[in-house]
Amino acid sequence: MTDAATIAFPAWMDDIQQRTETALAAALPSASTAPARLHDAMRYASMGGGKRVRPLLSHAAGAIFNADPDTLDRPAVAVELIHAYSLVHDDLPCMDDDVLRRGKPTCHVEFDEATALLVGDALQTLAFQILSQPLPGIPAERQLDMVHLLATASGSRGMAGGQAIDLAAVGQHLTVTELEFMHIHKTGALIRAAVLLGAHCAKAAPDQIEHLSHYANRTGLLFQVVDDILDAEASTATLGKTAGKDAGHNKPTYVQLLGIADAKTLANELRQAAHDALATFGKRAHRLHELTDFIVDRTF
Amino acid sequence: MTDAATIAFPAWMDDIQQRTETALAAALPSASTAPARLHDAMRYASMGGGKRVRPLLSHAAGAIFNADPDTLDRPAVAVELIHAYSLVHDDLPCMDDDVLRRGKPTCHVEFDEATALLVGDALQTLAFQILSQPLPGIPAERQLDMVHLLATASGSRGMAGGQAIDLAAVGQHLTVTELEFMHIHKTGALIRAAVLLGAHCAKAAPDQIEHLSHYANRTGLLFQVVDDILDAEASTATLGKTAGKDAGHNKPTYVQLLGIADAKTLANELRQAAHDALATFGKRAHRLHELTDFIVDRTF
Repeated sequence: MTDAATIAFPAWMDDIQQRTETALAAALPSASTAPARLHDAMRYASMGGGKRVRPLLSHAAGAIFNADPDTLDRPAVAVELIHAYSLVHDDLPCMDDDVLRRGKPTCHVEFDEATALLVGDALQTLAFQILSQPLPGIPAERQLDMVHLLATASGSRGMAGGQAIDLAAVGQHLTVTELEFMHIHKTGALIRAAVLLGAHCAKAAPDQIEHLSHYANRTGLLFQVVDDILDAEASTATLGKTAGKDAGHNKPTYVQLLGIADAKTLANELRQAAHDALATFGKRAHRLHELTDFIVDRTF
Repeated sequence: MTDAATIAFPAWMDDIQQRTETALAAALPSASTAPARLHDAMRYASMGGGKRVRPLLSHAAGAIFNADPDTLDRPAVAVELIHAYSLVHDDLPCMDDDVLRRGKPTCHVEFDEATALLVGDALQTLAFQILSQPLPGIPAERQLDMVHLLATASGSRGMAGGQAIDLAAVGQHLTVTELEFMHIHKTGALIRAAVLLGAHCAKAAPDQIEHLSHYANRTGLLFQVVDDILDAEASTATLGKTAGKDAGHNKPTYVQLLGIADAKTLANELRQAAHDALATFGKRAHRLHELTDFIVDRTF
């Protein structure tokens, strides 16, 4: 085990969050580069906030195979840029019409709607720009696969598709299976991409990718169930975004379908399934184990 | 010269337009694939319309080096998907608020605003998904460069940046130099990408890329000058989109700055410069020559 593997989880998390912030700052054009207002708004929307769950997952998955953290920064930033773009567009008046995000006014409130639209567009593009820069030590074939994996996870059969399913579900009664289908797309696909891109920064074997894929699917769903519980229970101040907004928008949630108690039971089952999926890696997967517990423990 | 090189320009153009339509149809998920409404709207926004200028440029540039048309379809479709996404977002109420495009209701009018937002997002992603699928006969290193080229051309220092500059220019007095700066980003960057991606489908030498880049910059600007003339002169019926809208939105145009006569003179100068940039290729560049003339001759 290296030193990096033995430091306590909170210190490790802090380290990854800091290096992600540094890498994002370097990836984003400066706020003085023309067009300055757009670049200022892109930095506003993606820096200085968020738990960086997806970069943490990329680094934690890469750590299993001792991948180089400098290499891991690249997919970590790419996935976070996709996530940031989706939040900016999701907050727009024609979508969730939200005014608060990460404790700050949302991008279209701080700037304007047209700028927020372009910010989301350009953050998405930047993700692919960053991920297509040659990575030292990674064969071009594999890196092309990584770009393809991120695109597939983000598009109409992944994250953007999940948002469309979400839109269509407003005011509808969904079954738990239908809700799961939505979340597998809306949040699960990108979380899976974060994990697998981390593994692709080292030479993970196909069966290892399979186990990590299963882990990511369980953890992605867990993340959403916990989010629903948080949204129902937490106050706006704690959350840093408008609390209770899903119920207010008449969106189906796990809490609505199952009640708080059963939603918590489901969360615990998914947590166990996530841990089980990592069995093959032994102690090398300890960061992924810790992250799964962190996702649950931020609520209850 | 092959048969493909000797057929008349209108027949060649028709052939490329048809194969682009077929390739787009294959690249886009079917309208019955879930989420069906999103996929239906993605097809609505990108198929069955448009002159396919960017795919024509990719094929014309590739033809210089006898690149395989089946290979060229891929970047042609990727660039066209980026173009289609930009139109959908550009037509949204918070941008140009336009109701007519290619003779049909715009995407947010035919569907709804939230769907149109996601359509644009997902069309952009699909472009990178398509371009990152391994292309037979192209080394992965070069293909990774192609993805990076498309991303750079589309993002905040390319097309999306140009739209931000355009937004900021509404109601402002711009000089011809400032107007050129805007268009080099807004339309020029993607037109240049279309040409260079075509050349990258064969093994073009760096100095050849340089000449093509110069050609594309002149042709991209020419395209915009002609568009401004069209917008000022043509009727809505001929144009298939709302005519006179730039003047109506108080957006600076070449016609506004120079007057119709001088705008036409500028167009002719740019046309000549575009032709001159192709000198090194001799007759092999005849499709690019023809395309440049076609861009001008659609107006006057």
